[in-house]
This record gives sequence, C-alpha cells and structure tokens, in this order.
Amino acid sequence: MTNARSVNLTPLIILALVALSVALFAALVMSNAKQFGSAQSEGAAAEQQHYRWRMVTTWPKNFPGLGTTAEEFAKMVEQMSGGRLIIHVHGAGEIVPAMGVFDAVSSGSVEMGHGGAYYWRGKSPATQFFTTVPFGMNAQEMNGWLHHGGGLELWREVYEPFNIIPFAAGNTGIQMAGWFNKEINTLADLKGLKMRIPGLAGEVFNRAGGTSVNIPGGELYTALQTGVIDAAEWVGPANDLAFGFQDVARYYYYPGWHEPGSTLELLVNKPAFEKLPADLQAIVTYAARAANQDMLDQYTATNNAALKTLVEQHGVQLRRLPDEVLNELRTMTEQVFIEQAEQNAMFARVWESYKAFKAKAGQWHKVSEEAYYQVREGD
Amino acid sequence: MTNARSVNLTPLIILALVALSVALFAALVMSNAKQFGSAQSEGAAAEQQHYRWRMVTTWPKNFPGLGTTAEEFAKMVEQMSGGRLIIHVHGAGEIVPAMGVFDAVSSGSVEMGHGGAYYWRGKSPATQFFTTVPFGMNAQEMNGWLHHGGGLELWREVYEPFNIIPFAAGNTGIQMAGWFNKEINTLADLKGLKMRIPGLAGEVFNRAGGTSVNIPGGELYTALQTGVIDAAEWVGPANDLAFGFQDVARYYYYPGWHEPGSTLELLVNKPAFEKLPADLQAIVTYAARAANQDMLDQYTATNNAALKTLVEQHGVQLRRLPDEVLNELRTMTEQVFIEQAEQNAMFARVWESYKAFKAKAGQWHKVSEEAYYQVREGD
Repeated sequence: MTNARSVNLTPLIILALVALSVALFAALVMSNAKQFGSAQSEGAAAEQQHYRWRMVTTWPKNFPGLGTTAEEFAKMVEQMSGGRLIIHVHGAGEIVPAMGVFDAVSSGSVEMGHGGAYYWRGKSPATQFFTTVPFGMNAQEMNGWLHHGGGLELWREVYEPFNIIPFAAGNTGIQMAGWFNKEINTLADLKGLKMRIPGLAGEVFNRAGGTSVNIPGGELYTALQTGVIDAAEWVGPANDLAFGFQDVARYYYYPGWHEPGSTLELLVNKPAFEKLPADLQAIVTYAARAANQDMLDQYTATNNAALKTLVEQHGVQLRRLPDEVLNELRTMTEQVFIEQAEQNAMFARVWESYKAFKAKAGQWHKVSEEAYYQVREGD
Repeated sequence: MTNARSVNLTPLIILALVALSVALFAALVMSNAKQFGSAQSEGAAAEQQHYRWRMVTTWPKNFPGLGTTAEEFAKMVEQMSGGRLIIHVHGAGEIVPAMGVFDAVSSGSVEMGHGGAYYWRGKSPATQFFTTVPFGMNAQEMNGWLHHGGGLELWREVYEPFNIIPFAAGNTGIQMAGWFNKEINTLADLKGLKMRIPGLAGEVFNRAGGTSVNIPGGELYTALQTGVIDAAEWVGPANDLAFGFQDVARYYYYPGWHEPGSTLELLVNKPAFEKLPADLQAIVTYAARAANQDMLDQYTATNNAALKTLVEQHGVQLRRLPDEVLNELRTMTEQVFIEQAEQNAMFARVWESYKAFKAKAGQWHKVSEEAYYQVREGD
C-alpha cells in the first residue's frame, strides 16, 4: 500500500507542482508585462527628473531685498515645479566671493547666480546698461525696455560668449545718492574723495575729481569706518539702515542721479538651462519676472519707514544734491557715454537702443508719472 | 535499482518543483511589490490630472494691453504646467457680457475672469481701492501696497463672500484724463457733461456738476459718435488710438487724476482653485504676478508712439488740466471718501490701510522718483 500509494501519488504531486510552477511563471510574466507598461509611463516620469541647483549671489545671505528676493525666487521655482527643481541659495563668499559670481556661472561650476550686470563691465562695458546708468531710466522704464523694447535680447547677446543666459530679477527703484562725511555744496566738494560707486557712475565721479572704487556691500561698513573710503552709495534707506551706515557717516544725499532704478540679474548657465525640460525652463523664466517685481514692491513698502528711522532716531542729515552739482555731473555723464561708445562697438549699439527707449518712455512719463506727481498733493 | 532509484528521485523532483514554485511565488510577490511601488508613483501621476479652464474678460478679445495680457497669462500657465492647465480666454460678450464677469466666476459657471475690481462696486464699494481711486497711488505704489502692505489680504477678504480669489494681473500706469469735445478751463466747463468715467471718480465727477456713466470699452466709440456721451476716459494713448477716439473727440487731457495706475484683476473661482494641486496653484499665483508687470511694461513701451501719432497725424489737441480744476476735484474727492467711509465699514477699513500706505510710499517717492524726474533732464 505504502509503495503502491507512493507510486500513484508521486506523478500527481509532480503534475500539481509543475502546474503550479507554470501558473506562477505565467503570473510572473504577466506581472512583468504590466510592469513594462508602467515602465513606459515611467518614461514620461523620467522626464520628471529632479534637479538640485546651486545659486551663488553677490549679497550676504538673506540680505533684505537683494538676498531675500533670491530666496523668494528659489521658493517660487520649488513650489511651481512641485519640488522638481530645488535651488539652494548661497551668500557671497560661501562658494565664491561676490565678484566671482559671473565666472562661476560661466564655467558651470554652479548653475545660477544673482547679482548686478554692471559688476561685470570688465567682461564687456555694455553690461552696465542692464543694471542702470547715470541719469538713465527708472525701474518702470527699464522694465519696459528690457521686456518690450529689445533690451533683454541685447543683454542675451552680450552674455552669449560667456555661456550665460541673463534674466531681470529685481529692481531697487531710484537709489539714494549716498553717504558722505561732509556737505556737498559744489562740485569742488567731490574733489579728492574716495567713494564706493560702481559702474559708469564711477567713471563720472573720477572725472569730477574723486576716486571711485567698487567694494561688495558686506565690506562697506568697515571701509567707511576705517577711512579706507570717504563716501559710499549702496542702495536706499532699508538696505543702508540694515548695514548700519548711519553709525559711520553723517550726511545722506538724494536723489540718486547715478543709479535711477537698478535692475538685478539672474544668471543661468546656458548648458544647464538647456538640459531642463520646457516646463521648468518656463518656470525659471516667469519666476524671475515675478521676483523682478517683488523686489521693487518690497522697497516701496519699506524705504520710507527706514528713512524716518535714520533721520529721527539716528540724527542722519538728509540733503538734496544742489542742481548745479547735478547739472555738471549730467554733462560729464554725456561725455563718458560718447567716449565709451567710441571705444566699444557693443557699448555703442546698446546705448543707441537704451537712449531711444529712454527718450520715448521719458516723453510719455512727462505727461503721466511726472505730471501726476506734481499735481496729486496740490503742494 | 530502478525502484530504489525511483524512490530516491521522486522526493528530489518534488523538492525541486517545490523550490521552483517557492522561487516563482517569491518572484511574483517581489514583482507585485515593485508594481505597488510604481503604483504609488502612479498615484503622483494621477495628480498630474489635466485641466481645461475658461476665462471670461471685460475686454474685447486680444485688445492691446488689457486683452493681450489675459492671453499672455494663459500662455505662461500652459508653458509652466507642461499643458496640464489650459485656459481658454473669451472676449467680452462671448460667454457673458463685460459686466457679467464677476457673477460668472462667483457662480462657478466659468473658472476665471479678467477685469477691473471697481466695476463691482455694486457688490461692495471697497472693491474700488483695488483698481485705483482719484488722487491715489500710482502703479509702483499699488504693487507695494498689494504685495507687501496688506492690500491683497484685504482684497481677498472683500471677495471671500463671493467665492472668488483675486490676484493683481496687470496695470495701465497713469491714465489720461480723457477725451472732450471742448476745452476745460474751469470747473464750470464740466457742468452738464455726460462722461464715461467709472468708480469713485464718477462720484467726484457728479459732484462737479457732470453726469458719470460706466460703459464697456467696446461700446465707447459709438457712444461718443452718437452723442450718447460728451466725454470719455478709457486708458491711455495706445488703447485710445486702437479704439479710434481721435475720430470722435478733439481734446485729449492729462494727467489722469482719476485713475493714477489702475490695477487689473484676475478673478478665480475659489472651489475651482482649491481643486488644483499645489504646484498648479503656485503657477496661477506667480503667472498673475508676471502678467501684472508685463502689462505695465507694454504700456511703457507703446504709449509715447501712440500719443505722437494722435497729435501729429490726427491733429488731436493735447491739453493739461488747469491746477485750479485739479485742486477742486481733489477737495471733492476727499469729501466723497469721507461720506462713503461713513456708510460702509469695509470701505472705511480698506481706505485706512490704503491711505496709510500711500502716505508712506508717497514720502519715499518725494525723495526718489519725483525728485529724480525733476532733475534728470536738467530742464
């Protein structure tokens, strides 16, 4: 019985196990076939690749307005991309020094930077128009020129040889003319002064008998305190109060003839940008546009209270630059433009476009913004 | 041997088949586990639902600046969402008439609208502050108030009972004071005039002895031509030229005391917005912000050429409103504010916030924008 049963049952057990194996194998094949199907939709999901980028900046991390806008930009991109593009923002000196931002983005050692185009005039003097130039356009006019007047296209052309795509990503509005330790009553009062004043305005300042230097914001307080410089312009009340300039200088001058609406820039390494899928490229593009407005909105909301604090609590002397001084600076500015245009063809081309737009927008603003400012208070 | 072999081999075969079954079962389990894993990422893909929305507008489709910005907004959203949110923009009258936009979004019959908050003052008089008010803030100040001064939060509160979430999505800048068929030399010249002038400015105009009406832009030309109205304000040179007002009116006045920087609005049906995943909500939010700037940039770029065409090719008489007229209108405006604030608590609350921000930003602009406009040309 035992033997007979074992003979009878064994083929059945084997048959059952073979059937089970076949069934399991079939199930496995089908299961893998389904997986292949979902692997295809994972192909679409593969486009949903995640990116971690680094942004270097020319500002101290989280510095009001300038640095916080860089963070705000990164936040917008993260939210809009559902976390597919995460940008870590680094303050000046964390990865590269402030003035190393352009080269770091150009080489691709980081994907992004946030700074001011006029810092890179050593690369091309035309870069200065994309931040601001003396007696130039204000924020509203700059935005019109950049986005609907051909300015951004020219900016891209100037940065093209450096593998960088620029975007406007912030505006300070009209800046203050700066901090001085003496009153400025005539042009002669500028003679011999060593002042932190970058860009074309620095050239004009030199022509007025001063000596211009460019020092990153984070080093200005010490430079003023130790007498390395006699004067400095930085941004406006909110930022200048944050740096504490009221402790190391007495006179605060307006209006900022030298920086009437400085555009800040987002620098993107071109190969890195081109590797992004189209939706993330659009997200970077429009987040920059939103950040561009947001910075100006912040300054519009904060500058007056800061100015009041400077004057009322710190005894800062608020002064208007005399018309005579401004008139002479304006004439010198025109000379500097003409000379630089003679020396550099791209400078000449960008100046041409800038000048034409400024003339048109300025005429419109004479009957709109300017006329309105004059009448709205009735004073 | 045979028997002994068969006895010896059968357990081995059974064992091998059991092992194979176990292995296949394990493979199947693992395969399904992997499928479960990818089912989770398919869960994420299920969030990748596609949405088709409709936007109704108070403008003719593709009308320069106003209508084109609505289209530009839709394009930004489509690009940034990779086609997951497609918005079809409808001109006034296509689905609902211009003045039916608010109700259509409120009821959810469409998901979105683009218009001007002051059109809905019948719903709440406080809405007017979110477009513009006479002698109020310009574009730069409005943007500061809305985004960094508590303005947008108040706007959301005012629209909350209507199931609508508002966003700023465009700004015209300072508008022109309007088209007249006679010269305006004193306040008496406004008496008896029937003028298209909406919002609080209409109240002021009534107080000055005129009769204000609100007519959608698309109907203004005929209303002027047929004498249904004697005067009209619309936007500024670029838009007014497009409507052809130069053919039906002779005098063109500035500056626009009545609309100094009108914000246009994006209206979103609240339940529809809340159904969107977080990334699409962020995309709508920041696209509105980018569109908000883009419209102003367009006007900054186009208004001057249009004004030149009006004056030089069409013989339009460009005139500045006399200070005396503006002073009287300013006094009447203040009275209208006080009366409306007494009648409506929300109006009073929003006015308080608006007034405080305007005072601060205005003081800042006295030493920045206004001072700069005065000195930059040296004239």
